Amino acid sequence: MEICPGIYTRSGWEIEERSFKAHRFADQGTIFLVGNGHLGYRGTFSDWEADRFVALTVAGTYHTARQGWPELVTAPNPLFTRLLQNGGIVSPLNRPLQKYLYRLDLSCGLLVRSMIFRTEEGDVLELEEERFASIHCLPLLHTRLKVRLKKGGPLTLDTGIDSVVWSLHGKHFTEWNLTERDHGMLTASASTPEGKLSLSVAEGCNIVGTSPLQKRIIREDGKLLRRFSCVLAPGGEIIIEKTAAVMSTFDSPHPYQEACSLVHAAMQKSFEQSLEQQRSSWAEKWKRMDIAIEGDLRAQAALRYCLYHNLIAAPFHTDRLPLGARGLSCQAYQGAAFWDQEVFNLPVFCHTMPEVARNLLVFRHRTLPGAREKAKRLGYRGAFYPWMSGESGEELCPSYFFTDPLTGRSLRNHFNDWQIHISPDISWAIWKYWETSGDNEYLSQHGAEILFEVARFLTSFLYLRTNTGTLHGVRVLGPDEWHENVDDNAFTNYMVRFALEKAALIWKWMEVNAPRKLADLMSSHNFTPDEAVQWKEDAAHVFLPTPHPASGLIEQFRGYFDLEDIDPINLSKRLLHPDEYWGWPAGIAVETQVTKQADVLQLFSMDKTLFDPYIWESNYLYYEPRSSHHSSLSYFAHALVASWIGRTDEAYSYFTRCTTVDLCSSQNPVVGGTFIGGIHTAACGAAWQIAVRGFAGCEINRQGLAFSPSLPKRWTSITFPLCWQGCHLLIHVEKSMVRATSAPGNAQQVPLRVTNREKMLHPGETWECRR
Amino acid sequence: MEICPGIYTRSGWEIEERSFKAHRFADQGTIFLVGNGHLGYRGTFSDWEADRFVALTVAGTYHTARQGWPELVTAPNPLFTRLLQNGGIVSPLNRPLQKYLYRLDLSCGLLVRSMIFRTEEGDVLELEEERFASIHCLPLLHTRLKVRLKKGGPLTLDTGIDSVVWSLHGKHFTEWNLTERDHGMLTASASTPEGKLSLSVAEGCNIVGTSPLQKRIIREDGKLLRRFSCVLAPGGEIIIEKTAAVMSTFDSPHPYQEACSLVHAAMQKSFEQSLEQQRSSWAEKWKRMDIAIEGDLRAQAALRYCLYHNLIAAPFHTDRLPLGARGLSCQAYQGAAFWDQEVFNLPVFCHTMPEVARNLLVFRHRTLPGAREKAKRLGYRGAFYPWMSGESGEELCPSYFFTDPLTGRSLRNHFNDWQIHISPDISWAIWKYWETSGDNEYLSQHGAEILFEVARFLTSFLYLRTNTGTLHGVRVLGPDEWHENVDDNAFTNYMVRFALEKAALIWKWMEVNAPRKLADLMSSHNFTPDEAVQWKEDAAHVFLPTPHPASGLIEQFRGYFDLEDIDPINLSKRLLHPDEYWGWPAGIAVETQVTKQADVLQLFSMDKTLFDPYIWESNYLYYEPRSSHHSSLSYFAHALVASWIGRTDEAYSYFTRCTTVDLCSSQNPVVGGTFIGGIHTAACGAAWQIAVRGFAGCEINRQGLAFSPSLPKRWTSITFPLCWQGCHLLIHVEKSMVRATSAPGNAQQVPLRVTNREKMLHPGETWECRR
Repeated sequence: MEICPGIYTRSGWEIEERSFKAHRFADQGTIFLVGNGHLGYRGTFSDWEADRFVALTVAGTYHTARQGWPELVTAPNPLFTRLLQNGGIVSPLNRPLQKYLYRLDLSCGLLVRSMIFRTEEGDVLELEEERFASIHCLPLLHTRLKVRLKKGGPLTLDTGIDSVVWSLHGKHFTEWNLTERDHGMLTASASTPEGKLSLSVAEGCNIVGTSPLQKRIIREDGKLLRRFSCVLAPGGEIIIEKTAAVMSTFDSPHPYQEACSLVHAAMQKSFEQSLEQQRSSWAEKWKRMDIAIEGDLRAQAALRYCLYHNLIAAPFHTDRLPLGARGLSCQAYQGAAFWDQEVFNLPVFCHTMPEVARNLLVFRHRTLPGAREKAKRLGYRGAFYPWMSGESGEELCPSYFFTDPLTGRSLRNHFNDWQIHISPDISWAIWKYWETSGDNEYLSQHGAEILFEVARFLTSFLYLRTNTGTLHGVRVLGPDEWHENVDDNAFTNYMVRFALEKAALIWKWMEVNAPRKLADLMSSHNFTPDEAVQWKEDAAHVFLPTPHPASGLIEQFRGYFDLEDIDPINLSKRLLHPDEYWGWPAGIAVETQVTKQADVLQLFSMDKTLFDPYIWESNYLYYEPRSSHHSSLSYFAHALVASWIGRTDEAYSYFTRCTTVDLCSSQNPVVGGTFIGGIHTAACGAAWQIAVRGFAGCEINRQGLAFSPSLPKRWTSITFPLCWQGCHLLIHVEKSMVRATSAPGNAQQVPLRVTNREKMLHPGETWECRR
Repeated sequence: MEICPGIYTRSGWEIEERSFKAHRFADQGTIFLVGNGHLGYRGTFSDWEADRFVALTVAGTYHTARQGWPELVTAPNPLFTRLLQNGGIVSPLNRPLQKYLYRLDLSCGLLVRSMIFRTEEGDVLELEEERFASIHCLPLLHTRLKVRLKKGGPLTLDTGIDSVVWSLHGKHFTEWNLTERDHGMLTASASTPEGKLSLSVAEGCNIVGTSPLQKRIIREDGKLLRRFSCVLAPGGEIIIEKTAAVMSTFDSPHPYQEACSLVHAAMQKSFEQSLEQQRSSWAEKWKRMDIAIEGDLRAQAALRYCLYHNLIAAPFHTDRLPLGARGLSCQAYQGAAFWDQEVFNLPVFCHTMPEVARNLLVFRHRTLPGAREKAKRLGYRGAFYPWMSGESGEELCPSYFFTDPLTGRSLRNHFNDWQIHISPDISWAIWKYWETSGDNEYLSQHGAEILFEVARFLTSFLYLRTNTGTLHGVRVLGPDEWHENVDDNAFTNYMVRFALEKAALIWKWMEVNAPRKLADLMSSHNFTPDEAVQWKEDAAHVFLPTPHPASGLIEQFRGYFDLEDIDPINLSKRLLHPDEYWGWPAGIAVETQVTKQADVLQLFSMDKTLFDPYIWESNYLYYEPRSSHHSSLSYFAHALVASWIGRTDEAYSYFTRCTTVDLCSSQNPVVGGTFIGGIHTAACGAAWQIAVRGFAGCEINRQGLAFSPSLPKRWTSITFPLCWQGCHLLIHVEKSMVRATSAPGNAQQVPLRVTNREKMLHPGETWECRR
């Protein structure tokens, strides 16, 4: 089954490429990524080098190179392996291919490359490369390479570490120390010039099958390699199994020693044994997150592909890291968390693996000092969360990162100082997490402080119009980034009210449930009950753009409806250069109603109870044709709202665009010399939400689970696990039926509602509700 | 004495051009303008046509052509006259000139052109053209043309009306009705398509000296002409005297009839008689405004030239018109009033001809409905005065009037919605007028209402930061137009406080002095005493950028000091096209500290009592090198503050640049096909202020007149009349002496202060104070 041109699936559990497309190497590297939340290794071939964007990206390794931007560093490539014959490198890509198959097995994160081709010597070479990033021992990468010659003959194989790394924004390390250790282990280690970060890579190699005739160590252009030379019998093969580890001072005070001992220990097992363990570890993950679709193999594979990338981007193992907007697929977007983390990815974890959601929200608590610092620097109080957050919570977003192709001048963006909705978005996420997890300990120890600091920030940010008594968000930038410098952005103001309201509410909750912690906060950060009263009052006075009485339309921001009304296609004809930025300060969209994404629809997605269905519909009909979807985030709200209003075909179309943002990308990932590719992690999280919240129509809150499904035409059913207040459920939705099963070990009843019917589901019970 | 290259003076009372520069015809038309506040007739030659920017601009004739902008219309040219010989037009400019003199006699507004040249026939032709706009009968223009042939022979002279007019923004009239009337009068009249405005021109002609052999009427390309053919004796001359009138429905319900009868009546007098009356009328004006400088003929002429243009731009005759930013010198700037009117021109009239100041301020009262409408349209209350105000007070400023030469796209300017300081500037002007005129009737009947409406506007515009209790001017544009979208602009916020404070004060004054009028305002516009109390409270809470304790620097707006610090010369090297706009949204100055003019220095100029001299000095030293003076308004504040801090050479240099903005202009008045020339009226008003408030160091307020002079090196004295609370004074300032004479007819004593010495000057008394 073809998912997009050249991308196939067989069972819905794999993504396959069946012919090699040389020009798509950048997308290929992204799509076929293996990873585990600690590292990401791009889906590149073992003999490729930095020029083809080979990268091993390591979580937590934020660093700024001289005159560069902060970003995650890339580590030396410990999986580098190449073949030689007659002193020349054997490159299958220059030879006629008899077979090409590149398969990512989503069930266990195993990437397999199979190629058969005729060598220059006229022999037939069969090559199979397997690779996975260990999901139970995160620093580890495993690979196995099999090479077989039909006629046989001499063959040389170089394998080791290539330290010449692809790096987007400058050189992070002084010099790589490449060393051969005992047991034939090869290592690379280096530190950043100012010594803050050290990184080490260790690699071990076992030969299976044919013993090499000769082995020697060679050094060449930043590579440290073992050269194995052998002569293969006809049909004979050489198999090498490699294990590598990468660690930084973020993970350990002694990354070098630890990386070496991890490799040493892992080498005691065969590749096959490690893969067995990988399969069972992944099976555990899938049990908690898989969504099975019956009747639509294409959607099934694309959705699982999204869930896979969502999973391998997430910090399962630590609460010190964000979930990056490009995961660990590359350095683009600086390994940083955006509002995407809370609004697009976190709901998935909230409802499937709440411990990951908690990690992310503890991370936001850890980064409060950075958010406080940002607020202070910009003249506010409380916590102004960064648009791009690295480990410390400082704002990673540079003021200038676009260049106008027409003038060559840098464009000042104001994502870092005007896009304030990130802070209330985090309050929203905390509230959602608490509602559905019941994690009072998190709320009292971490969440409350964030809610209070965000509320404090908002009261210092909002302006009061004294003659109306209303509070206004002035000069902001909503999710639609083409309209900066606007007032009373609907999305932002509603989120602001939410954050103020909930902060006041949680103050009351803390008074009852965590008075000692509240006292701590009061003494350490000068919070007072009066301030909390003020939040409640302020919440009541935030100016909210309300639906027009006749049309039901909500204005995206003050004056939006007065802007030129033109459609995105016609607007795009005004471009003088394809790479022009459409937004601030003088892009073609600024003075028009064309949006990058529709803020009002995004607002609907945040809270299904805010507005009535006819408001969803009238606004969908207005905003949908005016959105150019230049943001991968845009499809989500359109799909969700379309499914809510029964426009299932449109919803399905947006779902498809969302799940295949990267898989079917036709965009050049390198624009103006800058790599902007990598996995759109938010779209991956959004895919889950569209399936569960949209098609299965499932809303989850403190009151339980409610369903009002509208499955796409060809879907016969959708089945997925959910987690609510510590209880595990399995949900099965058909067009005319919802079935919920509560796990026998659950500690409480789960309230369910299907359209208008309600049910308290006991542990171990199954309820099948026909509609 | 040469004032600037090619521009001379003899006595300080005239401006002369002694060689003709063909490429400067646009500047020439501006510099040698004659006018009288009702009309402006550009200093073009009588045989020129629309392509050389011949224009008769008529006050009050605002009209918007299809797809154009509102502007004053231009009338048919009633002074059109050309010479013919042998059927060909005699153009002196194609012939070798034996003499060329173009002289504007500032003492009476008489323009004289004298030329002697060899004709194609080999004869020598002497031509003298004289022209003036009547200062005692405003619709009238007078001209006299003398032509003499040395050898004599046949000569043809065409004179009449050329209706093909130069118009900047489209065609305003349907079709010109060109008619010959009784007494040989020629007329042109037309109406705008929608019939709102009609305009008529009438013209009469007398022949003096040689009688023509033949006279006939010809019509040609929109011209209606009398053709006089004669044969001149050797050394014989033909003299024609013409009188023309222009009137519109703005001036009269029957402009055609009135224009005709005015011409008819005026034709009864000879040119010489009319000129005599002109001289005495102008003498009266000069008596009240002239500034005599001893020791610097160049400065004398340049300053008188400024006063002349200041005078002929001003509506002496009506309180229904503004004083336009380009006067009546052309259609550029749409014949509209800007803040220039109140801040640059009005102080001159306040202190010399308060009745003109009153006219202008009554005009602002008449246009209150437009300002109220603008406030309402933009979501505010009260009166938001337009950036560009025509007769009705509606905002004439279009949202798009620059085009980016790099992209060809229109640039959205925000002069019309963000530049709010115009309103408090008008409050300031009303206060200044009242202080120095003592005109309580104006204040109670007109001024108070404006002050109240402006205060009401400001309280609806300002935002309160609830956590600091301060009021903020958010997203404004100060005088420095290269920094739009800024907060807490120093100039604006101080002016806002002033306007709020004075409104509250005048409320109290009205309670005592005009209770009935106050009651009227309360009932017609819902003002209440509580609202006035609120103005006072708000005034106390306006956030004011204060001098830094160590450096004394005042930040132009929040964040200004964080902008890139680069000097204007180096910044200009970033231009990719000479016509690029430097400001919003993406001009080269936006993200830098380079200003178009220095707002903080402009603030100082508004109130000498606000800050101490060391604050003037530190800010002058900081802001002066960062100003590019791209606004002709910029020189004023620099000259004034420099003179106050004793940097007299620098002050003199800025004074010179201010007085010669147009006189010595080297800029192309046509940029990108658009005419942006015309008289910089504000600079003309500023020249008076620099001389009187700067060099003579004279500040005038309710408490009287105070002097602290610092004359430029070569000035031995400066002498000027002043008007204070209805009293007339003559001031004479030398380097070490100030002498003041109070007119015998004055009704009260005048308080004087020279540095630290004080004196009550009795009517008829002279006080000479040596320093």
